[in-house]
Amino acid sequence: MPAHPVFMDYDTPACQAVGQRIRAGAPFVYGLTNYVAAPLSANVLLAVGAAPAIGAAPGWPDGFGARAGAMWVNAAGLINGSVEDMRTAIAAANTAGVPWVLDPVAMGAGVTGYDALIRTLAAGGPAVIRGNASEIMALAGGMGTARGVETTATIAQAVPSGLTLAHRQKAIVAISGPEDHILTPDGQQVVIPGGHRLLATVTGAGCALGGVIAAALAVTPVGPERLMAVATAHALYARAAEMAARNAQGTASFATGFVDALSQLQQVA
Amino acid sequence: MPAHPVFMDYDTPACQAVGQRIRAGAPFVYGLTNYVAAPLSANVLLAVGAAPAIGAAPGWPDGFGARAGAMWVNAAGLINGSVEDMRTAIAAANTAGVPWVLDPVAMGAGVTGYDALIRTLAAGGPAVIRGNASEIMALAGGMGTARGVETTATIAQAVPSGLTLAHRQKAIVAISGPEDHILTPDGQQVVIPGGHRLLATVTGAGCALGGVIAAALAVTPVGPERLMAVATAHALYARAAEMAARNAQGTASFATGFVDALSQLQQVA
Amino acid sequence: MPAHPVFMDYDTPACQAVGQRIRAGAPFVYGLTNYVAAPLSANVLLAVGAAPAIGAAPGWPDGFGARAGAMWVNAAGLINGSVEDMRTAIAAANTAGVPWVLDPVAMGAGVTGYDALIRTLAAGGPAVIRGNASEIMALAGGMGTARGVETTATIAQAVPSGLTLAHRQKAIVAISGPEDHILTPDGQQVVIPGGHRLLATVTGAGCALGGVIAAALAVTPVGPERLMAVATAHALYARAAEMAARNAQGTASFATGFVDALSQLQQVA
Repeated sequence: MPAHPVFMDYDTPACQAVGQRIRAGAPFVYGLTNYVAAPLSANVLLAVGAAPAIGAAPGWPDGFGARAGAMWVNAAGLINGSVEDMRTAIAAANTAGVPWVLDPVAMGAGVTGYDALIRTLAAGGPAVIRGNASEIMALAGGMGTARGVETTATIAQAVPSGLTLAHRQKAIVAISGPEDHILTPDGQQVVIPGGHRLLATVTGAGCALGGVIAAALAVTPVGPERLMAVATAHALYARAAEMAARNAQGTASFATGFVDALSQLQQVA
Repeated sequence: MPAHPVFMDYDTPACQAVGQRIRAGAPFVYGLTNYVAAPLSANVLLAVGAAPAIGAAPGWPDGFGARAGAMWVNAAGLINGSVEDMRTAIAAANTAGVPWVLDPVAMGAGVTGYDALIRTLAAGGPAVIRGNASEIMALAGGMGTARGVETTATIAQAVPSGLTLAHRQKAIVAISGPEDHILTPDGQQVVIPGGHRLLATVTGAGCALGGVIAAALAVTPVGPERLMAVATAHALYARAAEMAARNAQGTASFATGFVDALSQLQQVA
Repeated sequence: MPAHPVFMDYDTPACQAVGQRIRAGAPFVYGLTNYVAAPLSANVLLAVGAAPAIGAAPGWPDGFGARAGAMWVNAAGLINGSVEDMRTAIAAANTAGVPWVLDPVAMGAGVTGYDALIRTLAAGGPAVIRGNASEIMALAGGMGTARGVETTATIAQAVPSGLTLAHRQKAIVAISGPEDHILTPDGQQVVIPGGHRLLATVTGAGCALGGVIAAALAVTPVGPERLMAVATAHALYARAAEMAARNAQGTASFATGFVDALSQLQQVA
């Protein structure tokens, strides 16, 4: 039986500790992601104090997959990269003991061959899988409910799938939505309330979260502390979104305020 | 003989109605575009209330081309995608009755083979062709006058070519510039005055307009109402640019203010 | 023996003259760069008054390499483009007498095959090589000290390597850091102090500088004046960063303020 959910926000001391370790460690985080999300992802990682590199130049998947503190693999990176490069990076990371995050973007949107490629990436053994409700349900084996890159399912609908997926994959599963749920293989649940609906109007914000999770993993030992690392990435995001919403004049100034808030919370700027 | 031009701005009730339908319908709009313009294009579409997906991951051109409410194909997407993927998406869209927009970026800049590829895309039957004066003149068969991705011709020079092109292609042709001209196969002309010169300092703003036109098509039935849909996209752009210019401190805060204004006008933020 | 370094900032009249020529000439600048940096690079070039085009659509490397006023080649462009396209563009530029800038991004980060590709690009004869300390040291033949795309070496450590590289390549070498050093084949040194540490939190800011250097080269005759052209690009950057830091609320509003300041200094907005 899963335990009762634990509610958490950015004020939790354990959360602050993870943020502090990212700031102090400035981890090198390597990402294979898509060109829509890449600029924001790099800026978000710089704002939280990490050192990102993105993309698969010749030799990078093998070299950076092994050298990074952690890695994130965004399935929509297949719009500008090959699944072979992703597999090379995953193999290099696994061999070197580098934890990595899988983001199954647009899984369950009705494109069967694409979904099958994501399943082969998931078989590579990510430490964390993050996505929206539709994506997590599809990767767990449920019906496809995504519309392009957007979810049509609710968090509540996705939690049972997420628990199944976490158990089967032996990975932490994080579902983003109006409140975020972080699930472990043994049925623990951390819930991050808050955040702001405008975050869904910033392209790549979800994708960039995969990078922030990786940054948190990079400064956290293997073991139960990883749950708090993943939760911290979400709590930091939620708090920054709330801060940004206060002064936003629209969706673009919200995006600017969001990255500003991340850099303020992490004392980078 | 072409009819006299009709002048229009965002206050036109028909325009407001199209904006309202985009907001209410949140259409899924699929784009094949270039990585320079992609982040802004996605953010612009989210700001007006649409649901964009961009790029050609395996299976997406066929799957999303058929499932989207509308599609836009930006020729400069050839910097990061294949003409085959574009053709696949076009064929899927045509089979499913999904209207699509062609943007012949940098046509007429002196690169013959590239121009020839765009002609093959135009042969696929876009519902709308949008571009700057040089691009429209080149696609209509005139002399190449583009310098890279910039026009050296005026709107006045391009209107006769645009009318010819609209008639030949049985498509609406939209020419962007200090004032925008929207032309139909039977010679109707709608002129959108206003806007702001700073819009030309925001990379990808023209490319993103192709996406907004697609969003407007997605919520408009086939037939004469499409003229108003295309005009609305331009009128919304012009108004948002005017609003952004009031508080801009430079080209980047203008860009932020422009997207903010789109989201305000569309009541997304 | 190298001469004593000359210190310079944006108030230098020679600097103002280069800025004025960019504004007046609006040079067409062609870039092969990566998708992380591309949107900012294009916006930065538009902000200073240049006319950028980016990417290798079919025929562009040959056509735009020859037609541009100047070109920049960013090695991390290998995440989304082929070395063959880069070589084609370089050959076209060289044949047409178009000066070009090489940015050896992430050279010396431990990926041997990637570093070897950059060496073949350098053999193509760039007019200017720009990078951070680790990259310049690696290209000069020293130990690899980069961590992903970031330097771990200091400017002081890199200057001797930079002088060697400038002499060997018969190129101007520019090293970016807390103060920038511009070095010539005959041992001249110009130092640009100032700038702001937050510039390192804006992804692609260094990459975009390669484009601004190209814009300055495009409006400057071959010969000794090129040193001032390269110095101007750096002095403009340093001044704009200082201006942006005054009102920044975080890393993202710093980025907006930086591009705004470029456009103000160049009287584009």
